[in-house]
Amino acid sequence: MIVGVDIGGANLKFAAVDPKSNNEACHSCFFPMWTDANRLADVLVAELSSFGKIDAFAITMTGEMADCFIDRHLGVQQIAEACRLAATKAGVDRFGFYRSDGRFTRLTESKKETDSVASANWHASATWLASKFSVDHGILVDIGSTTTDLIPINNREVSTPSKTDHDRLCEGALAYVGCGRTPVCSLVSSLLIDGKWCPVMNEVFATIDDALVVLEMTSPDAEDLQSADGQPRTVPFAANRIARMVGLDRSSVSVDVAKQLSEQIVDAAKARIKQSFHAVDQGGTIILGGHGDALFDPPSGRGIIRLTDRFSEPASRCLPALAVAHLFQNNRYALL
Amino acid sequence: MIVGVDIGGANLKFAAVDPKSNNEACHSCFFPMWTDANRLADVLVAELSSFGKIDAFAITMTGEMADCFIDRHLGVQQIAEACRLAATKAGVDRFGFYRSDGRFTRLTESKKETDSVASANWHASATWLASKFSVDHGILVDIGSTTTDLIPINNREVSTPSKTDHDRLCEGALAYVGCGRTPVCSLVSSLLIDGKWCPVMNEVFATIDDALVVLEMTSPDAEDLQSADGQPRTVPFAANRIARMVGLDRSSVSVDVAKQLSEQIVDAAKARIKQSFHAVDQGGTIILGGHGDALFDPPSGRGIIRLTDRFSEPASRCLPALAVAHLFQNNRYALL
Repeated sequence: MIVGVDIGGANLKFAAVDPKSNNEACHSCFFPMWTDANRLADVLVAELSSFGKIDAFAITMTGEMADCFIDRHLGVQQIAEACRLAATKAGVDRFGFYRSDGRFTRLTESKKETDSVASANWHASATWLASKFSVDHGILVDIGSTTTDLIPINNREVSTPSKTDHDRLCEGALAYVGCGRTPVCSLVSSLLIDGKWCPVMNEVFATIDDALVVLEMTSPDAEDLQSADGQPRTVPFAANRIARMVGLDRSSVSVDVAKQLSEQIVDAAKARIKQSFHAVDQGGTIILGGHGDALFDPPSGRGIIRLTDRFSEPASRCLPALAVAHLFQNNRYALL
Repeated sequence: MIVGVDIGGANLKFAAVDPKSNNEACHSCFFPMWTDANRLADVLVAELSSFGKIDAFAITMTGEMADCFIDRHLGVQQIAEACRLAATKAGVDRFGFYRSDGRFTRLTESKKETDSVASANWHASATWLASKFSVDHGILVDIGSTTTDLIPINNREVSTPSKTDHDRLCEGALAYVGCGRTPVCSLVSSLLIDGKWCPVMNEVFATIDDALVVLEMTSPDAEDLQSADGQPRTVPFAANRIARMVGLDRSSVSVDVAKQLSEQIVDAAKARIKQSFHAVDQGGTIILGGHGDALFDPPSGRGIIRLTDRFSEPASRCLPALAVAHLFQNNRYALL
């Protein structure tokens, strides 16, 4: 059994791959790195223990950018150390960190060359998918809760000169827009309501998730309180959060009006993702995935591989974890 | 002694006015309504007790918009009830809530007509200042930590048809930009760095306060941890927070580069305030105040009253509290 993990800033994603049976099991859990970084090793141990006997542990991360770490270098070091501790406690000897050149590295190297280990999960996903689906030429569009990766592929390999998040932001290969956490006030500066433009309140009163809930583009969940005001992710509460953005609330904004506001918010998110797409697209097959895939309408006439058709919902959500598990297995756990 | 209070979403501001000696004492304290609403009455009691014998207690609020309240109506009711409790415990018989028509109202009325009591502090400030400085025709520009009030004055009275925050947002009389809490990602969508435009990360990694600290437009404070990452409000830490906005950190962004980024952020804030100013300005004297007054460059050729020249720093910061205390005293505690 190989376990892959994607240690993000807000979520931990796990994939367990059995190379004999080719069985896969994926799941994710909410893990707010910015408050819980010190609990990381313990949570990893508990998760690893749930998988039975583990032959190897493949790690990728983006959580080093959480602002509980004073800089990314120290973030990678602390996360890498938590992984080592967890692997030791869980009795896993072989573990490696994915690098943005497609190879895996040991603990000591990862703690030195932190730049190559930091935020490399997009590279793992694109590399593995290009190979798995034999995509010679194309682009991966992977829309998560916080960000969208737009990774050009050529000759079945990642085809961007960018290595870091900063480079990818500048290039367009990383759009800092997703389907979950993106604050409404970062997407729009005004909203049209009752025929008037109203500047939005620059507060995190609502996120794009609220707009998607109101528009029924995502499933509501009355048990889920991971919202801006800690109230349920249901249509009435989401509409109330959206209304707050223009200084109103449920007493004066109907769900219908909230829908009109939500459409403008979703359109703004789509426009930003589209802009990034056109900045990096080099033609070919579009691999479209992530649980925010509704935020991208592929141009017509292009071959499309929809990951929702190919993977279960948990696997799609844990794609980088699945990718590093397979890549580590494919290279026989070779470490730099 | 009359005590005025401005109950905001993030701060409580107090002003004590002695009508005999005309002595004034002002102070403010951080009070995050969104987490601490249930403590409001206790905090008010403690504060009121510190002022000695109180003849009257004048109240204005904006805190009802905090998203711990499901809507503004219930927010006003809960805050009003906390005020009643505090007044009773502190032995203060006469207390009133300021309304956006310039009058004070009792508890029962304020709990019914919540719209007129909600977010009326701007009206109190403008009304009192127009009278105090005999401004027949002009505009109050009051730049706080979260928002800027831009209130036209005519015939020594507030001259805007807007009553609510929503109306004022649409009109331009409320700009949701301040000198403290405004998230950088709500002000700019990209920053120019090393000759390249880099889209910012849509996270609250930094606020405009960080830009002002880096540019030395506000005083740093190593003891103050009210920042996005909970680290000190000093130039190095603020520069690190600004660097995070473009996916970098202190290891690759010098303070000089952080200054260039900060200038763009401050310019964006100034532009938004200027836009609102031009939307509502009707000429005449400009009354400029608030601890963010550096974010507005008044047009030349206009008479200017700078509140920093007229008030102490604490009084300037607690302006609405001072205003309601004086207005309540001036109308002999008359209640609707």
